[in-house]
Amino acid sequence: MDRYNMDFTNIAIIGVGLMGSSFALALRKNGYKGKITGIGRREKNLIKAKDLGIIDDYSTVHAEGVKNADLILLASSVGQFEQIAKNIRNNIKNGAIVTDVGSVKAGIIRKLEPLMHEGVSFVGCHPIAGKECSGMDAATADLFNNAKCIITPTSNTNKEALDRVIDIWGRIGSKIILMSPEEHDLVFAAVSHLPHVVAYALVNSILNVDKDILHYGGRGLKDMTRIALSPTELWRDICTNNRNDILKTLKRFSSSISKMIKLFENSDWTGLEKEFLRAKEARKLIESD
Amino acid sequence: MDRYNMDFTNIAIIGVGLMGSSFALALRKNGYKGKITGIGRREKNLIKAKDLGIIDDYSTVHAEGVKNADLILLASSVGQFEQIAKNIRNNIKNGAIVTDVGSVKAGIIRKLEPLMHEGVSFVGCHPIAGKECSGMDAATADLFNNAKCIITPTSNTNKEALDRVIDIWGRIGSKIILMSPEEHDLVFAAVSHLPHVVAYALVNSILNVDKDILHYGGRGLKDMTRIALSPTELWRDICTNNRNDILKTLKRFSSSISKMIKLFENSDWTGLEKEFLRAKEARKLIESD
Repeated sequence: MDRYNMDFTNIAIIGVGLMGSSFALALRKNGYKGKITGIGRREKNLIKAKDLGIIDDYSTVHAEGVKNADLILLASSVGQFEQIAKNIRNNIKNGAIVTDVGSVKAGIIRKLEPLMHEGVSFVGCHPIAGKECSGMDAATADLFNNAKCIITPTSNTNKEALDRVIDIWGRIGSKIILMSPEEHDLVFAAVSHLPHVVAYALVNSILNVDKDILHYGGRGLKDMTRIALSPTELWRDICTNNRNDILKTLKRFSSSISKMIKLFENSDWTGLEKEFLRAKEARKLIESD
Repeated sequence: MDRYNMDFTNIAIIGVGLMGSSFALALRKNGYKGKITGIGRREKNLIKAKDLGIIDDYSTVHAEGVKNADLILLASSVGQFEQIAKNIRNNIKNGAIVTDVGSVKAGIIRKLEPLMHEGVSFVGCHPIAGKECSGMDAATADLFNNAKCIITPTSNTNKEALDRVIDIWGRIGSKIILMSPEEHDLVFAAVSHLPHVVAYALVNSILNVDKDILHYGGRGLKDMTRIALSPTELWRDICTNNRNDILKTLKRFSSSISKMIKLFENSDWTGLEKEFLRAKEARKLIESD
């Protein structure tokens, strides 16, 4: 139990953007007294974070910044995780835990677990608390409060490390859900990755009709396409890392659209309303979530 | 000019739901001093509207309610417009104007114009101010304020009637846009009808993966599928009445999805990010609309 006492004294956050900064602010708000080191490539951003009191110290060198950390949070774009892990692995101290906030899990974890030295544990996490905006300025201490946080242990996950990671997310108000990385990726391909790809495709298909008509859209169109404002690099990386599951859900969605087309072609308005009603009833159930 | 003085003294609203009630509330708020008669089939609803001061009087018989009206607003579901017009046509007084708030125009106008007797004018309108909720309880005096209102004259439209309809929507704060009924239907097939069908299809395709996983969705999914809460009967009628244009936009959208699938299949992540970026840049332009 010594090696894994429940309190961290030195937390390193790699990637001081929306998620990383919100994590730091949430820790402070909920009584964390230890040190928080921000790590990133843009010094100007890190200085700003320090000036704002989000972090205590910073480093632009990954391997330097993590040296004393007992918890390391990967909060940059998932596409960078593997390289970052390679950069820091020899400098992570014995007994430390590495965790992340990536929106994809299985492929990432398969790459990261083998990179961890004996005595260092990796625990995958995905807090469901994104925004279409990004960066430190959008960060809030309450971003994770009352939000779901999916934690995805594998057969290799150290049990005590898992408990400590569950504990820290719980302390900042997250509702913990355990899932295998594979189940996570399938579920989030459907409820998050697919909707993003659909939002981008919807905007583009309207542009293909006439590039000026988007302005005629009402609140419905704006709400529906808001996630198309998300950082494109982040979403490219998510797609890259969950290709097969997203492809499966995209094909399934394409079939749903084909079904709609068929109903229109057949002027089957009763059948169409049935489809609408099925969706409406299901959507109602999550309104109060 | 006598027959078309700019002020109405007797306005009949057929369908005292979200749109009809909001129109009545907006008229009052903006100084309308004449009489407002609510017309509908459910007396309980009409009594409530009268008790709430939304309307001055009511009738459950369409042909009775419109007798003295100099402006008649069709604010029920578009699927009912033709039958209503047949019911009331012989009771509309000379010089009166019939207008509507329907989300589809060309087909409706083709049916309604020939039903108007000599001396009665029809002017088609579509205020862009829906909500996913419906009914009188959701109505507000500001629903149309600062919202676009598309007015769709045809070669048959009486010029003075058009001016008076433009005037009254302007008085309640709407931003008037003139368009042909055909152009309207093509534009709104793309920016409104398509997104609704897509929202319903998206929910259903997620249900097809697993009916319980919708709950894992974050704010993005909720925003994106909010319009799937819209009244299904209303949307069935809109689809029925704009079949060909929606079918065209649905097929175009289906091609956009096929393009995304192809990019995933080819692991063409640069190409995928380009698609994302194109959508993001276009979506940004309407953020401040």
